[in-house]
Amino acid sequence: MTGEGAFLAELRALATAPAARGFGDDAAVLAVGGATLVLTHDMIVEGVHFLRDDPPGDVAWKLLAVNLSDLAAKGARPLGVLMGYTLREPDWDAVFVAGMGRALAHFGVSLLGGDTVSAPAGAPQSLGLTAIGEAAGPVPARSGASAGESLWVTGTIGDAGAGLRELQGGRRGGPMIERYRRPTPRLEAGPRLARLAGAMMDVSDGLLIDARRMAEASGTAMTIDIGHVPLSGPLIAAEGESRATRLAAATAGDDYELLFSANDAATQDIFAVAEELRLNVTRIGRVSPGSGLQLRDGNDLVTLPESLGWEHRALG
Amino acid sequence: MTGEGAFLAELRALATAPAARGFGDDAAVLAVGGATLVLTHDMIVEGVHFLRDDPPGDVAWKLLAVNLSDLAAKGARPLGVLMGYTLREPDWDAVFVAGMGRALAHFGVSLLGGDTVSAPAGAPQSLGLTAIGEAAGPVPARSGASAGESLWVTGTIGDAGAGLRELQGGRRGGPMIERYRRPTPRLEAGPRLARLAGAMMDVSDGLLIDARRMAEASGTAMTIDIGHVPLSGPLIAAEGESRATRLAAATAGDDYELLFSANDAATQDIFAVAEELRLNVTRIGRVSPGSGLQLRDGNDLVTLPESLGWEHRALG
Repeated sequence: MTGEGAFLAELRALATAPAARGFGDDAAVLAVGGATLVLTHDMIVEGVHFLRDDPPGDVAWKLLAVNLSDLAAKGARPLGVLMGYTLREPDWDAVFVAGMGRALAHFGVSLLGGDTVSAPAGAPQSLGLTAIGEAAGPVPARSGASAGESLWVTGTIGDAGAGLRELQGGRRGGPMIERYRRPTPRLEAGPRLARLAGAMMDVSDGLLIDARRMAEASGTAMTIDIGHVPLSGPLIAAEGESRATRLAAATAGDDYELLFSANDAATQDIFAVAEELRLNVTRIGRVSPGSGLQLRDGNDLVTLPESLGWEHRALG
Repeated sequence: MTGEGAFLAELRALATAPAARGFGDDAAVLAVGGATLVLTHDMIVEGVHFLRDDPPGDVAWKLLAVNLSDLAAKGARPLGVLMGYTLREPDWDAVFVAGMGRALAHFGVSLLGGDTVSAPAGAPQSLGLTAIGEAAGPVPARSGASAGESLWVTGTIGDAGAGLRELQGGRRGGPMIERYRRPTPRLEAGPRLARLAGAMMDVSDGLLIDARRMAEASGTAMTIDIGHVPLSGPLIAAEGESRATRLAAATAGDDYELLFSANDAATQDIFAVAEELRLNVTRIGRVSPGSGLQLRDGNDLVTLPESLGWEHRALG
């Protein structure tokens, strides 16, 4: 086990409360006074999760959006957030806070509190955000998938990964870069789909790795038809519709779409939600008895790529 | 205004929800489903809030204790915590997590979730913790003091500051170093005193600076009798009982005692709580009309020291 793996194992051993869901989920779920609270905390570090010259407003947006996405994946509506902010330099900080204000207003979320700290000169900036949500209905776990269900995903997959490649190649803007920098948490879809889902989680590290985690947590096998993975118009225009494009999309991460399993009896209701929200929802595979992730392309079995996505973001 | 001051002003402008209490309090207060939640998030940074060679178990303890102290100051009992952890090196991380486990068990608190991240090599470690509590009774604000009330403090003041000076002078242990490294949040006293208090907050930055903040938030003046500031036996043994010792104690910070105002009709009940919990509770001053903090020693007016405590920990 790596150092990080050992650390996480020790940390999980501390998470004895049922609310912690053994760290095996996107968020903690806490029953308080008749309400169901959903709680999540993510950190981002300069030089690891964002770059020193990333626009501060985009960093603010992403910090907020990735946490709200965890709430959406548990069917919760946000009640507010607390932020831990490391000061950098006044101009950057001012643009960041203005951007955070716009992002909060965009999602209709309140900043409730937090902390502001100084760091030693030259230290990379470290930012944390805690999001608190309330679920009015069921809170689907990552472990809730059952054999016989279908596997679904919202929106389109792979734009953020392609946007990152465009940035690395020197492009400055475009719809896929926008999706990489300003992901959209599925706050409207989350609570509606939570009522129909067996398991649900957000796709942050890559569709394939996240599906494998869902299969593992659920004690089932899953098969994904790579040909059904939904791609956007801009991605197809930029990279074509080949199997290679689809495999890159399904392992890139940063999509912040919802991946969920559902009984086929829910299919009509799923499409009704999709229509109401004008959101693409696509059936991409099946849950079956056994274990592991299998990839198909129509009738062909497809070898799993060596890397299924990002391995490092392990606490959800 | 400094860069940090301007940043905090901009941040406060975002905290529009009543639950945020305008960032003018130790914690946010959120009504959810009939329950009153209290939420706080503090960060600590290596080289600023703790030193690279501090024992990892003490760093874990302090990270937890300072957040639980904010809950206690609002009369809340902890429901759980989420931690944002930056990996350092495997041995240190392992000792930290073991220490966090002991601290959680000591306070009877659950780790619900969080995030673990890597930082670039050589970066100072940055840790965040969110504590969620529930208040069964009233949640005293920092702004709740009224003229005519008395001002009280739990425990003794100044040990942590003296412990820090001992550490800087080369001592390795002792009761005051222990209080500096392992502060005790007043989790039992907080909910009981909350029912009796006008205003309440924890003393983290220095008794005098925190009292002045309470006076400002409440729109009142406060007078503290420096001769009544409670000192511990070890502090008196080490530094004597002079006015200089008391002024140093009242400006040192890191006490994590509770400072509160209360109507004199509550005096009997306050002493009953003190007796029940075998906790020192001392009347140190008065709340009066006007503004500002005044210091007395019996009948003598005492000039306020130039620094009343730590100025930098501004978001509570």
